[in-house]
Amino acid sequence: MTNKIHFQCDYTEGAHPTIIERLVSTNMEQTVGYGEDAYCDAARNKIRLACGDADLDVHFLVGGTQTNATVIAHSLRPFEGVLAAETAHIAVHETGAIEHAGHKVLTLPTTDGKISAEQVNNAMEAHLADSSFEHTVRPAMVYISFPTELGTIYSKDELTALRTTCDKYGLLLFLDGARLGYGLAARSCDVTMSDSARLTDVFYIGGTKVGALFGEAVVIRNPRIKMHFRYSIKQGGGMLAKGRLLGLQFDTLFTNNLYAEISAHAIKCAMQIQATLIACNVPFLVETDTNQLFPILPNAWLEEISKHFQLSYWQNIDDTHSAVRICTSWATKYENVEALIKTLCQLSAQSKV
Amino acid sequence: MTNKIHFQCDYTEGAHPTIIERLVSTNMEQTVGYGEDAYCDAARNKIRLACGDADLDVHFLVGGTQTNATVIAHSLRPFEGVLAAETAHIAVHETGAIEHAGHKVLTLPTTDGKISAEQVNNAMEAHLADSSFEHTVRPAMVYISFPTELGTIYSKDELTALRTTCDKYGLLLFLDGARLGYGLAARSCDVTMSDSARLTDVFYIGGTKVGALFGEAVVIRNPRIKMHFRYSIKQGGGMLAKGRLLGLQFDTLFTNNLYAEISAHAIKCAMQIQATLIACNVPFLVETDTNQLFPILPNAWLEEISKHFQLSYWQNIDDTHSAVRICTSWATKYENVEALIKTLCQLSAQSKV
Amino acid sequence: MTNKIHFQCDYTEGAHPTIIERLVSTNMEQTVGYGEDAYCDAARNKIRLACGDADLDVHFLVGGTQTNATVIAHSLRPFEGVLAAETAHIAVHETGAIEHAGHKVLTLPTTDGKISAEQVNNAMEAHLADSSFEHTVRPAMVYISFPTELGTIYSKDELTALRTTCDKYGLLLFLDGARLGYGLAARSCDVTMSDSARLTDVFYIGGTKVGALFGEAVVIRNPRIKMHFRYSIKQGGGMLAKGRLLGLQFDTLFTNNLYAEISAHAIKCAMQIQATLIACNVPFLVETDTNQLFPILPNAWLEEISKHFQLSYWQNIDDTHSAVRICTSWATKYENVEALIKTLCQLSAQSKV
Amino acid sequence: MTNKIHFQCDYTEGAHPTIIERLVSTNMEQTVGYGEDAYCDAARNKIRLACGDADLDVHFLVGGTQTNATVIAHSLRPFEGVLAAETAHIAVHETGAIEHAGHKVLTLPTTDGKISAEQVNNAMEAHLADSSFEHTVRPAMVYISFPTELGTIYSKDELTALRTTCDKYGLLLFLDGARLGYGLAARSCDVTMSDSARLTDVFYIGGTKVGALFGEAVVIRNPRIKMHFRYSIKQGGGMLAKGRLLGLQFDTLFTNNLYAEISAHAIKCAMQIQATLIACNVPFLVETDTNQLFPILPNAWLEEISKHFQLSYWQNIDDTHSAVRICTSWATKYENVEALIKTLCQLSAQSKV
Repeated sequence: MTNKIHFQCDYTEGAHPTIIERLVSTNMEQTVGYGEDAYCDAARNKIRLACGDADLDVHFLVGGTQTNATVIAHSLRPFEGVLAAETAHIAVHETGAIEHAGHKVLTLPTTDGKISAEQVNNAMEAHLADSSFEHTVRPAMVYISFPTELGTIYSKDELTALRTTCDKYGLLLFLDGARLGYGLAARSCDVTMSDSARLTDVFYIGGTKVGALFGEAVVIRNPRIKMHFRYSIKQGGGMLAKGRLLGLQFDTLFTNNLYAEISAHAIKCAMQIQATLIACNVPFLVETDTNQLFPILPNAWLEEISKHFQLSYWQNIDDTHSAVRICTSWATKYENVEALIKTLCQLSAQSKV
Repeated sequence: MTNKIHFQCDYTEGAHPTIIERLVSTNMEQTVGYGEDAYCDAARNKIRLACGDADLDVHFLVGGTQTNATVIAHSLRPFEGVLAAETAHIAVHETGAIEHAGHKVLTLPTTDGKISAEQVNNAMEAHLADSSFEHTVRPAMVYISFPTELGTIYSKDELTALRTTCDKYGLLLFLDGARLGYGLAARSCDVTMSDSARLTDVFYIGGTKVGALFGEAVVIRNPRIKMHFRYSIKQGGGMLAKGRLLGLQFDTLFTNNLYAEISAHAIKCAMQIQATLIACNVPFLVETDTNQLFPILPNAWLEEISKHFQLSYWQNIDDTHSAVRICTSWATKYENVEALIKTLCQLSAQSKV
Repeated sequence: MTNKIHFQCDYTEGAHPTIIERLVSTNMEQTVGYGEDAYCDAARNKIRLACGDADLDVHFLVGGTQTNATVIAHSLRPFEGVLAAETAHIAVHETGAIEHAGHKVLTLPTTDGKISAEQVNNAMEAHLADSSFEHTVRPAMVYISFPTELGTIYSKDELTALRTTCDKYGLLLFLDGARLGYGLAARSCDVTMSDSARLTDVFYIGGTKVGALFGEAVVIRNPRIKMHFRYSIKQGGGMLAKGRLLGLQFDTLFTNNLYAEISAHAIKCAMQIQATLIACNVPFLVETDTNQLFPILPNAWLEEISKHFQLSYWQNIDDTHSAVRICTSWATKYENVEALIKTLCQLSAQSKV
Repeated sequence: MTNKIHFQCDYTEGAHPTIIERLVSTNMEQTVGYGEDAYCDAARNKIRLACGDADLDVHFLVGGTQTNATVIAHSLRPFEGVLAAETAHIAVHETGAIEHAGHKVLTLPTTDGKISAEQVNNAMEAHLADSSFEHTVRPAMVYISFPTELGTIYSKDELTALRTTCDKYGLLLFLDGARLGYGLAARSCDVTMSDSARLTDVFYIGGTKVGALFGEAVVIRNPRIKMHFRYSIKQGGGMLAKGRLLGLQFDTLFTNNLYAEISAHAIKCAMQIQATLIACNVPFLVETDTNQLFPILPNAWLEEISKHFQLSYWQNIDDTHSAVRICTSWATKYENVEALIKTLCQLSAQSKV
């Protein structure tokens, strides 16, 4: 293993110790497979409670790409596509899994990873006004990530506007919550878990990046999507044989407010780093208050930092500057945050941004 | 949880304690994701060693359906199909995942889950002799499971004959080893891990059913399949973010002969049950010496057994008899085997088969 | 071109002269494309009239494989499959086009090309009784061909029973009428064009084999299949730019009862040949009274016949006999029928069957 | 039918009279189906001769969308995508047929419908430099249209540069020649039919828009694409039962230089209209010298023109101007060209552009 301190992503460690303890203590129990065990049922109920809706269907899948492909393949008809930001995970980082399932990702331009109700509205009007609309892919779903791939979040007003627009045009609204906890824990966030369920047709609660070894909890409000969903999980390769591993993890995350607490920890760490960066006059590629920060650093600093820390290179800015991504998570140690802060302060003392 | 003793499948428990220990001890380490960490590399090398071929490519996926769909989608062209037994997992129990990826499963009749080189030969001759062969799916791969879904295994001669036939017709040979350990540990088995690698183009070593929490190790010999395989893993949703979880598990399984040892345990348990069944004059649907037994039991017995044990109902035989599947595994406790044996003996003493 | 007389299939000639005349007379007219011209509209209305239902949607596609794939892809969800006879065109002779669209063809055994309501019923009961039904493909449609690939036809009772069973289980009923005219014209047929529309969710009226240069008219009764069907036509590559070519052909076929008349001609020719075969004591592989005959001929006869006639070799029966297919069509010339009859009589006079 | 004169596209009429004559004269001939008849063979040889390469494979399909989907599905592996201009027909006007076949269209920005070798080069360098390249679609083919959807054409130097770049990165080069004749006939064109074959891996010669009722001739140079192509035609629904209809049409088009002559006619008509537009000081959205013109007209003119002519509305320019597409074809009558010119002159005399 490298000896560097990792801040490049939010899946470098295993799982929260409480989850590990439960996996250990239940290891030799015998249960039925495929998500039909009691642990899964318990986790489902706790998630329904957290969402404030007892009628929701909850399913557990293993990873994000699999979840996106399964939900989208399950929901769309062959000639339908999904509107998404050009930066959306499904548009750029899933090796075409959505296309492999037969569907086009209809991208909308964005600078901060978000798309607006107005953009969706305009896309639908353009489709409907096209005299040869049947020669183009029919938009049938809106995909948003919360937080986005650029660490930004939607306000409740923005989500509500998207919902209204989706209703106007008969579109499904799908929220990718791979980092949901980190969005809900952000200072500026006025959206709740319950809103996520209420304002979308289907969304998922990310476990992989928020305390679990792996796992995403798909929460379905729309009856049409509910129907037959387990067939699609199986077809998509997402029905874990030992399904209780997923149930146990989500049951733990939704006990004693653990999911929210560990998300808040990640945000606290990120905000400390952000405060230092601001104090050092470092500009940001995009303004965020979730667990992802996108500072624009002098390349000289970056070289120095990289001796001890692993960041994620994002993009070239100019001859002497680059944007990077710094990620915190439920597992981030304060000592590592302090080490990074110390290094930043030293660099700032030595040379200008 | 039910209080019954489970013998219905080989994935009712978690993982071998040694695996759990390693997950615990490495939990807060930071590693890179997606299978590029040192634990995965170590596991790869141990598997190459076990296969006796340093040039093999080894990849880790999460589950069997996902692995089958990924390997087949990766290997075939759109108009190509895969020859398989009519009982093959890909033909009946994957919700059409192979068809979802665009390919037809071309089934061959079987009574014991196996297909022969002669059957493959005849299928190819029929295809080539068809004047409208381009109107039919082109067979391009042979899929076999080892052991089969009916617990049987191929001899080295049978595997070699399949290899020869595949070479004759330019077919790929793919071995689904979801239960590979249990096959290699069978008394009648003259095939080795090394043979599995040498005689196939690609095969996989099942972890989910043989000691791991989850995970299948795909081993590729054919250079054409090796190329770009990671793209297909990602597209198929099988690239686990925290890939080291797979590496750790397979590294453990292939250390100190653990995979073979725990497989042998399952076989020992199965053979004890089988001996009792034979002693009770119970006939079998199919003769096996792996971890799956298919006894034909009087329905009256079955009713009694089901009060304390969970078996897998297989098929109706006649008005008073049914075939069931009894599965042992790496996790089967001797006390549970003894309890089942005792119950069988009691039933046998009370009433005839 | 070969100088032999072709009886091997029903698409060896061009189109009925009346169609050719209309293509010639309208050739330099300018119309809009993609099936939105007045000729297509006129043809749609005539087909609705022939089916006795003004609410039907009618679309024109180019060929049969395309039509089958388009209708099935449009109608099913990803995890759903289509029940069909093992001899069905979609099961054997479309190079896996249905699988390419993601769906499994769930085959049922047959000896005469037909499947029964009871078979469908049993398949559904088996699916629903399977405790792991979500691990198998969900049957969602029944595909039948009328006439079948073996020249047989369903009675109105049989069709009605299939409809009832489909309603019971929520299955769609799709009738492939590539040779529909020849079925409706058969002596034993008690089904009408109107029944085809009334008893199915969607069916098509074959043009390619019944008088047109090419073209299949899809007739949709089910509102869910009606919706957005033109998107699927375009996606499936079936939306002919010069769509009027299809409209013109079907408008012609459905003017002055042409479709029925030319179908009747084919049947008359077939029945003359059949009568001769019966008189010669020739047995049949399957009993038919449509335009396809499947006599079992001595190989010696076959060799002689093949000097002057092109038949379709069907299957080996024994060392000295083979089944062949003899096809008549709208274009069959009486003189050719007479020539074949004469040859048969001569052979019969010379040697026994 | 509308009484307006159609200039909105190049498929408003039927076929060139010579083609119609041959369809009529051969109508009752009997031939084998599926493109294996003598007319298809003759057409193949004439196309090979026109391309100056006797080793080319030539196949006949029915329409453009079908051809694009078939060629791309046949050529790519599941995780591979096709680079194309954002205006490419496959990217916008085929209802996602490429995605339906499982592949992402990787769009490159363009203002004139063309993409450059440099753009392809940069896209490949970016893909290869991406540390998570396996999480993105692998570019494996470059799709260009000739002429493009905006009427522009590539020079021989540009095509050669694309070829060189494709060779550098192992990319396939596919040229969509739906309007190939109109490109080759353009005044500025220095590319020949032979160059199209020599510089691409596969291309097609459009019949639908250039004199045929329908039909596209796929010409394959790359041995890997040649192999098994007929399976893909059948699977894609493009194997016309009465395949000779395609052979007859292309045989006619490639006899006595007909394809080039009728293409030149369309260009002559377009250039007359273009000259008038230039004389009227009308600007163009894009400079073209093929059969598609994209003038920017005052809306007042457009309203007047639309009383007698059907043009294709392209896009809004400002409050008082719109871009339209004017298409000529092999079938355009001089009297209609003159009528349009006269109207333009009158409008120009009355009001400024």
